[in-house]
Amino acid sequence: MVRLKHDADLIQSIAELARSKGIEAGSFTAIGALKSARLGYYDQKNHKYREMGIESPHEMVSCIGNVSASEGKPFVHAHVVLADEKGSTKAGHLLEGIVFAAEVHLRQLEGLKLERKYDKVTGLWLWSME
Amino acid sequence: MVRLKHDADLIQSIAELARSKGIEAGSFTAIGALKSARLGYYDQKNHKYREMGIESPHEMVSCIGNVSASEGKPFVHAHVVLADEKGSTKAGHLLEGIVFAAEVHLRQLEGLKLERKYDKVTGLWLWSME
Amino acid sequence: MVRLKHDADLIQSIAELARSKGIEAGSFTAIGALKSARLGYYDQKNHKYREMGIESPHEMVSCIGNVSASEGKPFVHAHVVLADEKGSTKAGHLLEGIVFAAEVHLRQLEGLKLERKYDKVTGLWLWSME
Repeated sequence: MVRLKHDADLIQSIAELARSKGIEAGSFTAIGALKSARLGYYDQKNHKYREMGIESPHEMVSCIGNVSASEGKPFVHAHVVLADEKGSTKAGHLLEGIVFAAEVHLRQLEGLKLERKYDKVTGLWLWSME
Repeated sequence: MVRLKHDADLIQSIAELARSKGIEAGSFTAIGALKSARLGYYDQKNHKYREMGIESPHEMVSCIGNVSASEGKPFVHAHVVLADEKGSTKAGHLLEGIVFAAEVHLRQLEGLKLERKYDKVTGLWLWSME
Repeated sequence: MVRLKHDADLIQSIAELARSKGIEAGSFTAIGALKSARLGYYDQKNHKYREMGIESPHEMVSCIGNVSASEGKPFVHAHVVLADEKGSTKAGHLLEGIVFAAEVHLRQLEGLKLERKYDKVTGLWLWSME
């Protein structure tokens, strides 16, 4: 459980944390606040991400994610829910999030190897089924 | 940590996973995307669930839940937050969720027995207090 | 994994749970329903919390938080997403939440000492960086 650096990108910070701790597979939750963010929504029909910019400060009311391998490197997949000063929310796949403050609980899953491979049904890079 | 099957129901998939792994008590988080869902809101006064259908594709931006026993069978209790292409959210108790893609981290809580029993104060099936 | 008491405050209940189990550092997730709540939004510019009262019953669709020490006592930091009967959400830093029903999975992080100290960049009480 660690605090992330002010002004760092959340996704890159967790990828770095995983690398520095030798974590190949893991799961995390985080809370805090972001200065700005870029969210994605996956168009399930056209197999494309749509992007949304969030330019104002928000509470990060939920962040759930995982670490696995993609093309041999630690890959961070995270979804967030953000809230503004009225408690209204915006949410999606987290592409980028500039940290105001963030507390992350990252759990290493030892002995687990999860490698993302292209899945043509969804157009996403997913783990193989057991 | 596993990927669920495309087109399967999330609740049933996790119940099956728990059964196949012999998990009697557990806790999980999940992220992904759903093709459609059925959400519930519990009316605290009238002790009844109201249901909402979500017929369009959404990001599953948060899914938190647990596994325990109800009438001798593994019972999955999950709450979700869903987001549409504008990042707007719909959320509630997950009654049914058709998986587009889903990544689940299920943790077994060994030695724990949690049996749901009817609680007349809330009208819900809850665990006994310690 | 435990059920919290009906009509208790969620934050105080988890602080008590941590105290009674000797948990100095931990992480938790919870789901359930609240009768009412008080949420906070941190104004990143003026370094002040703004408060919002939620006076009606809501599903607690997500609650993510942690336990650490602040001035020698267990301190609970939690963020929630709440949903009403239409599935619409309100979310923020949880200042107070009156439990209708709540299921909490609290994990002790043994050997970890996290002490909150005043951070002048954010105006928040944060853990020291590694």
